Order: sequence, then C-alpha cells, then structure tokens
Amino acid sequence: MKANQVWNDLKNVKDKGPLVHNITNYVVMNTTANALLAIGAYPVMAHAVDEVEDMVTIASSLVVNIGTLSPRWVDAMIKAIKAAKRKGIPIVIDPVGAGATPYRTDTCLMLLSAGNPSVIRGNASEIMALENAAVKTKGVDSTQSSESALDAAKVLAKKYHCIVSISGKIDHLTDGNNVITLEGGDDMMPKVTGLGCTASALTGAFVAVAEDKLQAAASAMAVMGIAAEMAAEKATGPGTLQLHMLDAFYNMSEDDVKKKLRS
Amino acid sequence: MKANQVWNDLKNVKDKGPLVHNITNYVVMNTTANALLAIGAYPVMAHAVDEVEDMVTIASSLVVNIGTLSPRWVDAMIKAIKAAKRKGIPIVIDPVGAGATPYRTDTCLMLLSAGNPSVIRGNASEIMALENAAVKTKGVDSTQSSESALDAAKVLAKKYHCIVSISGKIDHLTDGNNVITLEGGDDMMPKVTGLGCTASALTGAFVAVAEDKLQAAASAMAVMGIAAEMAAEKATGPGTLQLHMLDAFYNMSEDDVKKKLRS
Amino acid sequence: MKANQVWNDLKNVKDKGPLVHNITNYVVMNTTANALLAIGAYPVMAHAVDEVEDMVTIASSLVVNIGTLSPRWVDAMIKAIKAAKRKGIPIVIDPVGAGATPYRTDTCLMLLSAGNPSVIRGNASEIMALENAAVKTKGVDSTQSSESALDAAKVLAKKYHCIVSISGKIDHLTDGNNVITLEGGDDMMPKVTGLGCTASALTGAFVAVAEDKLQAAASAMAVMGIAAEMAAEKATGPGTLQLHMLDAFYNMSEDDVKKKLRS
Repeated sequence: MKANQVWNDLKNVKDKGPLVHNITNYVVMNTTANALLAIGAYPVMAHAVDEVEDMVTIASSLVVNIGTLSPRWVDAMIKAIKAAKRKGIPIVIDPVGAGATPYRTDTCLMLLSAGNPSVIRGNASEIMALENAAVKTKGVDSTQSSESALDAAKVLAKKYHCIVSISGKIDHLTDGNNVITLEGGDDMMPKVTGLGCTASALTGAFVAVAEDKLQAAASAMAVMGIAAEMAAEKATGPGTLQLHMLDAFYNMSEDDVKKKLRS
Repeated sequence: MKANQVWNDLKNVKDKGPLVHNITNYVVMNTTANALLAIGAYPVMAHAVDEVEDMVTIASSLVVNIGTLSPRWVDAMIKAIKAAKRKGIPIVIDPVGAGATPYRTDTCLMLLSAGNPSVIRGNASEIMALENAAVKTKGVDSTQSSESALDAAKVLAKKYHCIVSISGKIDHLTDGNNVITLEGGDDMMPKVTGLGCTASALTGAFVAVAEDKLQAAASAMAVMGIAAEMAAEKATGPGTLQLHMLDAFYNMSEDDVKKKLRS
Repeated sequence: MKANQVWNDLKNVKDKGPLVHNITNYVVMNTTANALLAIGAYPVMAHAVDEVEDMVTIASSLVVNIGTLSPRWVDAMIKAIKAAKRKGIPIVIDPVGAGATPYRTDTCLMLLSAGNPSVIRGNASEIMALENAAVKTKGVDSTQSSESALDAAKVLAKKYHCIVSISGKIDHLTDGNNVITLEGGDDMMPKVTGLGCTASALTGAFVAVAEDKLQAAASAMAVMGIAAEMAAEKATGPGTLQLHMLDAFYNMSEDDVKKKLRS
C-alpha cells in the first residue's frame, strides 16, 4: 500500500460523492450514515421490499449487512442484490456473526448465491465460518489464526469471483490470487461497536468510484486505521474514540495519510 | 423573527415539557430522543399498530418521519395520524426522501390524506417532489432553487391547510400566505445525519405548546441554527458538531438566542 | 454497599467477559452495545424468531427490553426467554413504558409468565404499573413515591421469585426480603435517553458472572452512578455526559469506585 494510492482513492470518494445504499443493522445505522457523510459519500438506508429495487437504481453501490436480520429484511436484501447485479453496481456483503447461528450462516449463503458480491468484508471467524459452510462440510475450527482465515478467504474469493477483506489486528485482502496486508488502527477499536460495519460501508463508497476494486477496498481499510490513529490522539476511551473517528474521516488530509499509513 | 419571540417559544417548551410521540426512522431515533430531552421535551417512540392509538392519547404532538419506512410502519403511521386528528393534537410530517422512490412519494400522499398535518417539514427537493405528486403531473425538476421550492410549499400549504417548513442554507416557512425566512446554522450541518429529522422533532415540541404555529415552527428552526452555531465553536468536525448541538439545546440561554439569531 | 464488593463484581465482568444477548429497542441499541463493550462484556443483538434460541445457547445472559415493541419481536422475546430458562442463564426484563399503554403492560405480563426473570429493572412508575397489573385490579396511583414503588417491588419480587431493581434519584433493589439502597449519579442523567436501558444491559452482564445476584444487580447500578459522576466532571451537557460515561465504563478503576461510591 502506498500512501498516494490511498489518498487518490479517498480524494476520488470526496470528489465523486457516491450514493451508498445500505441495508444494515439497527445498532450501527446512525454511525454508518455519519461515517459515509464525513468521508464525502452519501448514505441512504432503505429496506422495504417495496422500494429497494427503485433505490438501487439511483445508488452507486449496495452494502448488505446482516447484523440484526429477520425474514422480511432478508427478502429485501436478496431483491436489492439482484437489482444491483442487473445494474452492475458493486455489492459489499458484511456477514456479521456468520457461524454464530445456522440462520446467519444460511442467510449468507442465500445472499451470496443471489448475485456474486464485489467484496465480502468480515472478521476472521466470519470468513472461516462462511468458507466452511460454502465449501467444506466439517465443523469450524474454534481457534482461528489469521493465516487460516486468509486461506479461507482465497477459496471464497475464487468461488464467488470477488474480493474478501478480513479485518483484524492486521487486515488481509485478497482477490483469490493477490494479497494486500495492512497494519494500523488502535487497540481500543474492538471496544467500539460497529467499526467493522463502518469499514464495510466505507468499502462500499470506495469500490463505487474506483477501477481497481482490490486496491480501493484496501484503501478503505487503510482509511479506517488512519482515522483510528488520528482519533486516538484525542480520545480518552472508546466513546471519544468513536466520536473523533467521525471528525477524522472529515478532516483527513494527504499529509495525515502520508504520516500515519503503515503497511 | 425576533429573538424574544424565539426565546419565549423555547422557554415555553422547557416550562411545559410536551410529550412528543415519534414514529421515525431507525437511523435517528437515538439523536432525536436526546435532542427532545435536551430541549426540555419528552420523547416517546412507539410504532406498533397495537399501541399507537393509545400512545397518541397521552401525547402532546405526533411526529411522523418516513426515513426507513415499511408496510407495517405505514399502517401504524396512518392509524396514529387519524388518532391525533381526532384528539386535535399537532401532527408534523417529515417526508424523508420523497421523490427518491415511488413508494416514498405514494406513502407521503397517503399520510397527508389520512389527516391534514399541522406542519410538513422537509428539504427543497422533498417539498417539490411532494407538491409535484400531490398537485402536478409533470416530472420533478432536477435543479431545484429555493424560490421554486417556496412556490411549491405555498401550494402544499394551501392544499393541506398546513405550514410547510423548508430547511436549507436559508430556511423558508409558509402557511400559504405569510413567509418567514431564516438564515443561520453551520456549513458542516449537511455532514451530520438526521439533523433534518431533529428539526422535525423539535418542530413537534414547539407547535405542541404554542398558539401561533407558524411562529413556533420558525422558532424551532431558529433554535436548530443557533445550536449549530454554538456547537461549531467547540466542534472539530461533524462528529463533535452533532455532540455539542445536544449540549447547546440543553444550555441555550436568552443571551445565546439574542447574540446568535440572524434573520 | 461496600466499594470492594462493587469493584470485585466489576472486575469479575472484565475478567470473564460475558456474552449478553439483548433483545432491545431501536433507540438505544448503539449506546447499549457500546456500554457493554466498554465495561468488558460482549453484546449480541438478535431478534429473529428463527435464531433467538440458537443465540441463547451461546449467551451468558439474556436482556429483554420492550422500548419499541411489536408483535414479531414479542414472539421472539418469549421464545428467547423460554430458551434461557431451559439453559438456566439469567434473564433481565426492562418493562419500558409499562403502564403507558395496555399493549405494553399486557406484553410485560406475558414475558413474566414465559419464564421467571432473574431481575426486573425499571423506574418507579413502571414497577408500580407492573405490580398493579400482575397483582391488583385498581388503577395505578399517579403520584408514585419511591417508598410505594419499593412496596410494589417487594410484591413482584416474591411473586416472580426474582430481584426487582428500581432506578431513580435513589435506587432501590430487593429480592422481596432484603433491600439495597443506593445514592449517586448526576442530575443530568434523565436528560440522556436510554440510560435506564444501559443499566438493564449492565445488570445482565453483572448477574451473568456472579453468585450473589442481588449484590451483582446492585453493583451494576452503583457502576452506573459512578460512571455518571466521573463523566459529569468532563461534561458540559447531556450529549457529552452520555459520551464520557462510555469512557468512564472503560476507565473505571478500583480507586474511582472507592472515591465515588455513596450508599
């Protein structure tokens, strides 16, 4: 990852202001919308079966997040994914809690078969649970290493012809062949709810306006880490960390990217 | 707009503490509830078809916001509007995203015909989309000027015997004949999600306790602008702007109103 | 209440990191999840009838909050309560707005009969409304004193073999026989939405990992008050109070507990 590539991708978002259609969970809607606005994109949240197809027609990308799913929402997710596929806009899927319950895992498989996503973005255990359900039949290993998650990610990426973005202490992104590795962020990030969901939403904004989707998805993760480091300088706990990340998304300059990017 | 009128309306809210029944969207529920509490009103969020009529009986006003609508919610909105009409309490409608999808526009028309609102509060494009759907048959002009939105607002206000409150860089409010114009606020406001929804909720609190509804609706918008200016003095981005607006609603004094009010 | 007992209970949560399954309202989901993370617990929000039983199997406790209820959610709440009962994990019920509408009161009675809770946590008027509906037939007294709420709490505690935790300027907790009384907190707390819901969620975390449930439920309330006092030192209004409480949950040390605890 080079700083000027991250900055170019970020500037691209700010210049083009993509409209990101989110079908996401109740917990994070406010912070997701605020993060998209702060970064220079435009959020729309719409989940009614009666309107998701129409909303997709005016959107630049679709982000589907199953954090607080229920049947009618899943119906809408599938309808929206199919519409996004027809229109040819990027689709990002965040398989929140895949593996925690059969309902979550099964729903993810339905979403993936409704239309190949551009990006699957989750943590190591979600990616491994997904690969296990989609590919293997044996149980998920309970002690996931980052490396084994990367193997699972490569398999998923090849099966669904997509990018898989794994967040963690070190982020890994792959299109099945190439791998981008990113370090950064702050140790308090796991103490803030929904930062993974924010990462998925930003990924939706970045891939909406870029040619190189793998690079753009990685730039989104880099921006998350840089914002967290900027915020950590002002934060005194996880509450203020979340708050100042919003300010950091808004204020992030080329200079900030150059100073903070680790790779 | 005179500062002492705005202050009187604000003090009225703080003294009377109206209970505002909100049927609003998932994105803003937390910030809406916090804004109402900070300003001195009391929020209640209830959307079940089984209880909205009962909740209206204890409320001072009803605010209906279609930000994340779906069929069962629309059923409840209509039931609540009819109950509020029977009881004679003010109804505020926020037509979030009217014009973006047919479902939104059609729902707005259903809500408006369920019971004339006291106030329709939206941005220029929403008001124009609504007027277009309710009155005209030709398509919505994509380049809305504030003036043409004001014309649309006057038509809507006369058709539904209500006040129309248009937020923007300059706010316009009209009852169809009289017009109040307001300047103020901060350039970062569009980077915070749901400030329009907050404006609708405060409008619900202000019109609940005032005789002069047009003036009260304008005072609510003035308070939004003043709070944003107070918050901007402490804010370093949209995250901290949203936060400090809550503090400003709580702390706003007669002196603040006098110093900050522009008109 | 002794400070070392509160600290032991808090440290227990931080050390054991219980997974708290919340079926709660839309208004508070974000702040509830953040509070649980900050205190050292792990939140999961899941409300689909199709998965609540599976989610309960991996949870350490279940918190059910009826703030924005609707029929499908109530179905899921009942299913989850029955599953939690079978598994033997603690159940906390927050009867938000009990007494405000018949639907709320009736739902509470259904939840209570679905499986005796470990803790009912509400404010004085909710507890009195509940006791009135569950035990008496005459109307709820409109002027509830803290004492009469305590009487109602004792009756409820005996009827449902549970702890009742009443929040207010002074908190009262009882198992029907013993009473713990707590003073503390900050006068601005009622100006922040959902702090009662946060108290219920923390109660879920504390009773999940402690033997003495009455003591643990009281420690959760003590931690709320201490966090509010810590936050008030930095806050300039209700917005910043809510924010800094999250930081305080995260930072709270044995020394903070010893200095701030009043009883």
